[in-house]
Amino acid sequence: MPNLEVCLSPNLLPLHTLTHKIVVVVDILRATSCMVTAIACGVESILPLQDTETCRAMKSQGYYIAAERDGKQVEGFDLGNSPFSYMEKHLIGQKIAFTTTNGTQVIKLSEKAEQIIVGAFLNLSAVASYLLERQKDVLVACAGWKGNINLEDTLFAGALVDVLATQNFTISNDSALLAQSLYPKKQSDLLGFVNLCSHVQRLKNLGIQKDVEFCLQKDVYDVVPTLQNGSIVKLASQTAL
Amino acid sequence: MPNLEVCLSPNLLPLHTLTHKIVVVVDILRATSCMVTAIACGVESILPLQDTETCRAMKSQGYYIAAERDGKQVEGFDLGNSPFSYMEKHLIGQKIAFTTTNGTQVIKLSEKAEQIIVGAFLNLSAVASYLLERQKDVLVACAGWKGNINLEDTLFAGALVDVLATQNFTISNDSALLAQSLYPKKQSDLLGFVNLCSHVQRLKNLGIQKDVEFCLQKDVYDVVPTLQNGSIVKLASQTAL
Repeated sequence: MPNLEVCLSPNLLPLHTLTHKIVVVVDILRATSCMVTAIACGVESILPLQDTETCRAMKSQGYYIAAERDGKQVEGFDLGNSPFSYMEKHLIGQKIAFTTTNGTQVIKLSEKAEQIIVGAFLNLSAVASYLLERQKDVLVACAGWKGNINLEDTLFAGALVDVLATQNFTISNDSALLAQSLYPKKQSDLLGFVNLCSHVQRLKNLGIQKDVEFCLQKDVYDVVPTLQNGSIVKLASQTAL
Repeated sequence: MPNLEVCLSPNLLPLHTLTHKIVVVVDILRATSCMVTAIACGVESILPLQDTETCRAMKSQGYYIAAERDGKQVEGFDLGNSPFSYMEKHLIGQKIAFTTTNGTQVIKLSEKAEQIIVGAFLNLSAVASYLLERQKDVLVACAGWKGNINLEDTLFAGALVDVLATQNFTISNDSALLAQSLYPKKQSDLLGFVNLCSHVQRLKNLGIQKDVEFCLQKDVYDVVPTLQNGSIVKLASQTAL
């Protein structure tokens, strides 16, 4: 039976073995929600980068450039970290270079994994189906906020554990158990619960409650973005792997 | 209003400011449960140490020496990590030098705090009363297991948050919220829940289920062990501070 672990902070990732595992990277508010939206809406690829200057330089190579720091779009970039901006028609078929405070960092830290896929509430069932099909050991890697554990990523981890544990996956660390126990069964409770959390309070101050509500919707998109040759792309065919 | 934070792993402690805070160190299975038991049963002081060799050397200075690694008593030491062994009459008035896999390490990492106190289910209400009286910012520092988050320490953090949040403490990070949400109201659920967790499975293999049941009992002792001049002692008088 495949094992299922959860890592609640990127600062704890060094404690986990990544080789031979599928890592599901999660940054619900909002990096992975943006990535899922972008790939579902027709963006060709997303190049995750660590720093804003490397990201900015990709403009000259035909990329749209996207950067978020501390919840805000960085000046001089085409895009920030709102999922709605990734639905625009002019982005269909385009490449985006993307750097965020937490989400793109956790992708970098997970690079020893056999495969990295991008998870969000927006594609929860698609991710779960893919993992059930693959039957490999899974680590859910939460991006958190500057190393700190956050509630929204933990809740997503819990939602995913809740699905996989009823199948043949074995919960193999306490963080997975903790996340599953935390996850409320009702969507209305999820919204109420997330509204308590620190990052949502930060985002409210930025006036983006609409983004928060969007990012907490389940199964809006049926895509599994995956890292291939350094870029996030749509999985061509799940059965082809 | 004083703030209340929880840190679920010693590896995340560097993200927290400790100065001007009371840090409650927690290692339910079993270091802080042993310390609370020892101090409540009349041990004069406990010197927490990082390594077994430094600890062993204290024997010549009149200390009883105690060491646990990987759940087991280290050979050549007087005591291990079972709370029952700290109830012995010959320990009354004695000094113990103590090193454990996780618990004594988190004390070392918390040394910048204004004050370090020792928490366990065994003295939950005594700790809560003391914190309510002091009205200082509080950080609950969970020892975990070799850097990993564990369920039993998270549950204790949740129990403490649950008491303090109904008073005038402000929950100030997501880990505190997460711990509080996890904490079950019924003692029977607590036992059942903890039996699922990874460290309990490890301890069961060592045949110490009796220790686990003891360590999950609330309010057996009315003491607040506190670090003074490098050693853990009984708080002389709560009101004297």
